Amino acid sequence: MALKTPEQYIDSIKAVKHRAFIAGKRIEDVTQHPNTKPVIDIVAKTYELALNPKYEDLLTLTSPLTGEKISRWCHVPGSIEDLEKRRQMNILMSQIGGTCHARCVGTEAIHALAGVTYEMDQKLGTEYHARFKNFLRYMQENDLTSSEPQTDVKGDRSKGPLEQEDPDVYVHIVERRSDGIVIRGAKAHQEGNIAAHYHLVFPSRPLRKGEEDYAVMCAVPAGSQGMTYICQDGPYEAERREAPDINILGNPVYGNAISSMTIFDNVFVPSENVFMCGEIEFMDSLIDKSSKIHNMVCRGACKVGFMDLIIGAAQTIAEYNGIARASHVVDKITEMIRIRETTHACATAAVLTGKEEPEGSGAFYPEAMASLSASLNTQYGLPQIVMLAADLAGGLVVTMPSELELTNPETSEYVKKYLKGVASVPTEDRLRMLKYLQYWVAGPQGARMWQGGVGTQVHRMGMYRLFGNVMEEKKQMAKDLAGIKK
Amino acid sequence: MALKTPEQYIDSIKAVKHRAFIAGKRIEDVTQHPNTKPVIDIVAKTYELALNPKYEDLLTLTSPLTGEKISRWCHVPGSIEDLEKRRQMNILMSQIGGTCHARCVGTEAIHALAGVTYEMDQKLGTEYHARFKNFLRYMQENDLTSSEPQTDVKGDRSKGPLEQEDPDVYVHIVERRSDGIVIRGAKAHQEGNIAAHYHLVFPSRPLRKGEEDYAVMCAVPAGSQGMTYICQDGPYEAERREAPDINILGNPVYGNAISSMTIFDNVFVPSENVFMCGEIEFMDSLIDKSSKIHNMVCRGACKVGFMDLIIGAAQTIAEYNGIARASHVVDKITEMIRIRETTHACATAAVLTGKEEPEGSGAFYPEAMASLSASLNTQYGLPQIVMLAADLAGGLVVTMPSELELTNPETSEYVKKYLKGVASVPTEDRLRMLKYLQYWVAGPQGARMWQGGVGTQVHRMGMYRLFGNVMEEKKQMAKDLAGIKK
Amino acid sequence: MALKTPEQYIDSIKAVKHRAFIAGKRIEDVTQHPNTKPVIDIVAKTYELALNPKYEDLLTLTSPLTGEKISRWCHVPGSIEDLEKRRQMNILMSQIGGTCHARCVGTEAIHALAGVTYEMDQKLGTEYHARFKNFLRYMQENDLTSSEPQTDVKGDRSKGPLEQEDPDVYVHIVERRSDGIVIRGAKAHQEGNIAAHYHLVFPSRPLRKGEEDYAVMCAVPAGSQGMTYICQDGPYEAERREAPDINILGNPVYGNAISSMTIFDNVFVPSENVFMCGEIEFMDSLIDKSSKIHNMVCRGACKVGFMDLIIGAAQTIAEYNGIARASHVVDKITEMIRIRETTHACATAAVLTGKEEPEGSGAFYPEAMASLSASLNTQYGLPQIVMLAADLAGGLVVTMPSELELTNPETSEYVKKYLKGVASVPTEDRLRMLKYLQYWVAGPQGARMWQGGVGTQVHRMGMYRLFGNVMEEKKQMAKDLAGIKK
Amino acid sequence: MALKTPEQYIDSIKAVKHRAFIAGKRIEDVTQHPNTKPVIDIVAKTYELALNPKYEDLLTLTSPLTGEKISRWCHVPGSIEDLEKRRQMNILMSQIGGTCHARCVGTEAIHALAGVTYEMDQKLGTEYHARFKNFLRYMQENDLTSSEPQTDVKGDRSKGPLEQEDPDVYVHIVERRSDGIVIRGAKAHQEGNIAAHYHLVFPSRPLRKGEEDYAVMCAVPAGSQGMTYICQDGPYEAERREAPDINILGNPVYGNAISSMTIFDNVFVPSENVFMCGEIEFMDSLIDKSSKIHNMVCRGACKVGFMDLIIGAAQTIAEYNGIARASHVVDKITEMIRIRETTHACATAAVLTGKEEPEGSGAFYPEAMASLSASLNTQYGLPQIVMLAADLAGGLVVTMPSELELTNPETSEYVKKYLKGVASVPTEDRLRMLKYLQYWVAGPQGARMWQGGVGTQVHRMGMYRLFGNVMEEKKQMAKDLAGIKK
Repeated sequence: MALKTPEQYIDSIKAVKHRAFIAGKRIEDVTQHPNTKPVIDIVAKTYELALNPKYEDLLTLTSPLTGEKISRWCHVPGSIEDLEKRRQMNILMSQIGGTCHARCVGTEAIHALAGVTYEMDQKLGTEYHARFKNFLRYMQENDLTSSEPQTDVKGDRSKGPLEQEDPDVYVHIVERRSDGIVIRGAKAHQEGNIAAHYHLVFPSRPLRKGEEDYAVMCAVPAGSQGMTYICQDGPYEAERREAPDINILGNPVYGNAISSMTIFDNVFVPSENVFMCGEIEFMDSLIDKSSKIHNMVCRGACKVGFMDLIIGAAQTIAEYNGIARASHVVDKITEMIRIRETTHACATAAVLTGKEEPEGSGAFYPEAMASLSASLNTQYGLPQIVMLAADLAGGLVVTMPSELELTNPETSEYVKKYLKGVASVPTEDRLRMLKYLQYWVAGPQGARMWQGGVGTQVHRMGMYRLFGNVMEEKKQMAKDLAGIKK
Repeated sequence: MALKTPEQYIDSIKAVKHRAFIAGKRIEDVTQHPNTKPVIDIVAKTYELALNPKYEDLLTLTSPLTGEKISRWCHVPGSIEDLEKRRQMNILMSQIGGTCHARCVGTEAIHALAGVTYEMDQKLGTEYHARFKNFLRYMQENDLTSSEPQTDVKGDRSKGPLEQEDPDVYVHIVERRSDGIVIRGAKAHQEGNIAAHYHLVFPSRPLRKGEEDYAVMCAVPAGSQGMTYICQDGPYEAERREAPDINILGNPVYGNAISSMTIFDNVFVPSENVFMCGEIEFMDSLIDKSSKIHNMVCRGACKVGFMDLIIGAAQTIAEYNGIARASHVVDKITEMIRIRETTHACATAAVLTGKEEPEGSGAFYPEAMASLSASLNTQYGLPQIVMLAADLAGGLVVTMPSELELTNPETSEYVKKYLKGVASVPTEDRLRMLKYLQYWVAGPQGARMWQGGVGTQVHRMGMYRLFGNVMEEKKQMAKDLAGIKK
Repeated sequence: MALKTPEQYIDSIKAVKHRAFIAGKRIEDVTQHPNTKPVIDIVAKTYELALNPKYEDLLTLTSPLTGEKISRWCHVPGSIEDLEKRRQMNILMSQIGGTCHARCVGTEAIHALAGVTYEMDQKLGTEYHARFKNFLRYMQENDLTSSEPQTDVKGDRSKGPLEQEDPDVYVHIVERRSDGIVIRGAKAHQEGNIAAHYHLVFPSRPLRKGEEDYAVMCAVPAGSQGMTYICQDGPYEAERREAPDINILGNPVYGNAISSMTIFDNVFVPSENVFMCGEIEFMDSLIDKSSKIHNMVCRGACKVGFMDLIIGAAQTIAEYNGIARASHVVDKITEMIRIRETTHACATAAVLTGKEEPEGSGAFYPEAMASLSASLNTQYGLPQIVMLAADLAGGLVVTMPSELELTNPETSEYVKKYLKGVASVPTEDRLRMLKYLQYWVAGPQGARMWQGGVGTQVHRMGMYRLFGNVMEEKKQMAKDLAGIKK
Repeated sequence: MALKTPEQYIDSIKAVKHRAFIAGKRIEDVTQHPNTKPVIDIVAKTYELALNPKYEDLLTLTSPLTGEKISRWCHVPGSIEDLEKRRQMNILMSQIGGTCHARCVGTEAIHALAGVTYEMDQKLGTEYHARFKNFLRYMQENDLTSSEPQTDVKGDRSKGPLEQEDPDVYVHIVERRSDGIVIRGAKAHQEGNIAAHYHLVFPSRPLRKGEEDYAVMCAVPAGSQGMTYICQDGPYEAERREAPDINILGNPVYGNAISSMTIFDNVFVPSENVFMCGEIEFMDSLIDKSSKIHNMVCRGACKVGFMDLIIGAAQTIAEYNGIARASHVVDKITEMIRIRETTHACATAAVLTGKEEPEGSGAFYPEAMASLSASLNTQYGLPQIVMLAADLAGGLVVTMPSELELTNPETSEYVKKYLKGVASVPTEDRLRMLKYLQYWVAGPQGARMWQGGVGTQVHRMGMYRLFGNVMEEKKQMAKDLAGIKK
């Protein structure tokens, strides 16, 4: 069987020679450093669950490529039912980790590559799809984790790649050799990179003639020569570094799964790992496919799992505070539910009306408009959910003392006495739920969730453009009823 | 073949002896009175389209009951595919009529009855389902139109049926005879009554012990002894009565399909037409089923068709005014699209995750939560769409003169000269599009659409209650991650 | 005393020779035609109230120009206290008429002219201010009503005046004579024109070099040679024309005060009535001044009076329906109040921080940013208020029958019985309150109120531009705190 | 002169014997501990600015009590002009500190006490006002800082003080002696306590008969026998504790001014420091007065200063990113401005329509409804501002590395190269602005700002109740226009 145990996975990552930094210092072992450990642990959890019979049907399947039992994270959805499981898998991981589980985008990259490489081969006679399938087989056989470095650092946002002062602010090919290519540049916000075996480097924007060097998709092993990982650092990382016991933290085990800026400084990629190399005319198809997946999976599934956690926490704290039945509290919880269910329904529609693209590729994608709807409703709705949860939690969500006071005999009795809510709930439970809510409403999760890689404006423009296909028809309907003669 | 022609339908309605009133006067012929004609005409259109080969698959089918080709308006959806066609049928009629097409709720009643009568028979050993099937066969064989008088006039809303000063403000059984029952009361807001052959009288609220007389569902032929129809009347009706030519009106052919308050003053209903008679314990199931259908069909389909028309009209007027490319205009149109697509996706999810209820009944219903999501997003979104459309139309949508000025030599040249927008569009077309938008944004359609029978509060409470089924699970997820011990 | 009685006012308007049309027909007597009578009557009401000792202090004052007691409608605010009374005057008229009282914009024109003519004379050595004062004295001495035809019909909105196919879509000077000028063009949406003695023709947009002919401000007597009034017409006008008794209408006495498109077809204006004639460099000042007044008076005062009426009506109908104490109803009423009070507070701030501009002119104007805030909050808030009122009113607000049913013995008892709400309120009162709410939520008032002459986009741009004056300062504050060195 | 230098202030606080804890440990010197130092430093800044001639007029005045020059923070506003300066003072401190400046609520307490003690003496013949004036003179002469411990810890929120299992969850009198009283309980969320010389203990809710022991207002010197301060602790505190250089932090100097839960464990208060002692019938007046001040000062002034900073930072980062001119960016900045100006206008109105209450007291308060409007618009608007700022900042606001990377030769060149935006701005500046925005959008400031002591529901109920005074009048207006006879 191809499935790794969590321990095997952790060992395999420990074996990678990351050149990684955090807060100005080199990290010795990413699997043990307090700030990188959570992201390794949540990925390890995906391996653990895949071995759990309870989740066997959801998280594993028999590979059409290898005929072996593989992880669904290495699979390209080949039917609506597969797409649906892809979605459920993401909701599950969000509910279990309460943080980015870091496997999502790597699987997205595989998913998008399947269709686009097929298309390229059909139209151009290239061999990208065969290469991709070889690569995928290798991933499946070794039960590997991939990441998708997509967002370029971009420099001056008013300019395209070629107009930048520094050509490297978008990853690009700097040399083409007979046996492969050399790439340079950096990708920002990479949540899964430090936990992955392979990076599936992806272009981040439509490209024009002359920008061929920027149209590059390829697989790079983690820790390759020339790579550097500069990890995010902020208050939550500092708090975790200092904590004598993770249980005093907001989301103790999985916390604030950190990302890194990942730098490719003249990294060589052998030809068999290159899946696009200059074919700018396929950028639209690539972006269309990866958007459809990302909008459905990242906004319509992952965030739905987070909403579940926030709703559950808000209801719990309302009960702990003794206000769960007040009419305005019921109304606020209902509003959170309304947002959750709207997003969930949009994603459901996106999955159930998905289709194979292109025909014959065997790769199924969600429907674009419903995916965009899921995305925009999430992005507009999450800030509302966060605000409502903060409101229900009350001021302590910001002003609470450390749980360490409970271990200090000088203060523990005061804290137990004065931070108690309803009589039946231990103060410690109330403190932990408040600390957990703090993680959601008074830290980076808010901005992270409603931003999540792509801003609302891009989705709005996507919707407007897509509706353009039927606008003439809608105008004609209105004209017919208005009595305007053709 | 069972299908009526539109002419046959109109003749059959003309043959009904309605005791109907409008603006204080008895109506002679509802098929010809300017205010009732539009609602007859839009129903006639449903008959016309059913005979059109283009819509054959959507609007007709072979009845599982009769084996004959019948109208889908007389059919109980027996599969997800059927549910989907039920939805498409509603979107189509909204797009074609731009008004209530009046067949929706009657078909809803049939749909809800199918499941509930089956349930009652299974649990109580009654014969309601058999009666219902006989009635349905008769409807199919004669291609009849039904309506669903549901909303009672309610009197004092703070009181239940038994606490009212006047017991008749909810329709109820006043006499039980060996051969049938006698009912009394009135139903408000009945958009289709005047155009229907049969009224499927429905209770409008959950009932308690002691309120058995109010738990009555039965079929009453239009114009029965004891019935009176008091039609709505308002500015749009007056305008239509006066118009020398319907083309000067906002939605000239189908306009403001009017409703009536329908009074049942000791109406006798023979036993074979009675489908519920006191079984209060089935009210929850009945309301659940009819809500699921109504939310999906009325908010998630019908209103999506209307949104299409408003978006099409708003885009057209922006083009006529020369502002379609301004960034704020694009943004407003996009917001309208976002609302439309969100609602549409929720309804899609409701249909595609629907199921047979109860098993064995052969009746398929949409999923409840997604239906509620469609409903609330419509109700909150439509006022935004209406406001945005009004904004894009500009002040003339309110202040425009009558198109009759174009027929007056003293003013026609001024109107043509000064109410012209972009040079390429005739002033007459601009006037007609403005008049059409007036119908949507400066008349009863706004309030009508976002209200539409059931207020938002009912749906919010429905959502909160439904989420109650999973709330404990969500709370537990949050507690697990917060580190709270069980 | 200069004050006219309402009868004298009506006679003076009857004496005007309007060339006016409605629904394709010439109007004989605008003071008696059912559609124009309401606007004459509400203006007559302003005359009546000025003679009422209760309002003497608010509605009249001793003119600084004539030393006589005059109507405040002919006065230029010369202090903050005056500005405050100007505001109160508008709220009062909205509350009393529930419709456009038609004097607002004419007084705005006088108000704006006072400052701008002073400025022009100071800078250019012209005599506009002296002319203006003569004209104003004449207005005061004869207690006349003025209107402000400002909004040009505009043609293609993507083009300026000189780029239009028809140069007349903006009013402009077509001939300059020794004794005056000749103007041509048309102004749309003129609510007060038909009820005014004088039209104060105003330009509607900033102008550039070469567009001098469009920079024209002048006073034209109503009914001048070359003028035509084409009145708005729609459903509410038709309903009023037909009504045997105005009490069956929604706002029976003052109703839907109608506007007209007013055409100036080579109208001669003598020099003494011309207050701007080509001075494009003063357009910014003119627009700034008239915007400040309009935003404060029209959005921050007039609409606050309307909101009072809608809130009062919504609360009343909730009580009639028996639901006034339900928590969601209290919450909806509270939301309406919140919007009302926000707008009101913004307008209060605009008045109380107003100032004389330019110094020495004696003309006081509200502060610009607070006026814009009042405006935008009104425009975004009113649709919400309308929607909430519709929700509280329930479906009957759209589907109610005519009150004429109460006079028909065949239906009156049914209507009384079945349209009763709580037992203590006569059905007739409930019907009238519903009909009154219909006027607000299911007719043109919604779109009219939130649009009202200038779209939100213009105000948003105004705010952004105005904030530009302090943006550098705010950026510097942020940089200082961020630790960015200068 | 009574004014302290900042150094004198710091020394005076250092001299207080605080029994204070943070993260489970006793704090040695609150003026130097990294987590408490910022709040001491921002208060020291208020002393520094008072000595700066530039702010002399705003921050100091000649005391009507002492005839000496005093700090305005120890003054009761005695005119509208004073109220206005009170407001400006708060905006200024927000702009300068970008955090809670901790003097606001202590000054609020003085402000509220002035009117309420006067009222009590007038009605009850007590001597509270004289005591209060003595205390105030002492504060002024010694230029002291006060805090206002108001929010009780509350226990079970569904229960009043007497129904709680633990009577101490609301601060109350446990003993009445001839020379004073003894109090017990705890106050949560006290931002200024650690930096104050005196705590003005305040009740937090309306009280009923039987709850007299909870109606207690008194002044307690900081560090009194029986007092304990348990400080808040969270990620931002940990980050600051660890930072080798505060310049790597988000708001380096003043940061996240922390609060404490302050415990009064049998604290004795001598009679001369007691200003209310059981007079429950004055709780309504007290709450009314303190709400009016708090809503105006805390929401309508303080938060406006914060909005300025966020807008300034958002505009700066948009420029650094090269997107400041994109239409959607302009629109987002405009929306932030709209919210800022609305709140600002509401607070302006509250100040300018304020009045002396009760007459003769010499204490001026803002108008209640406009203060509530400021509050609600802030609470609903700030989350929108935060979300928009996060959107404009982009993903780096969450995922950025530590500035310490710039000091590490292994990573500094990569960071400078790849985190550069437009060419003209040094990467370091961009990093600092992002870190500064992180402080606003990805930490506790969001929840803190929109919550800020009192939830929205309390304000909504306050508005509804206040509008109750005019509701009948509004209903009558509507009835008059609807034609309903009295």
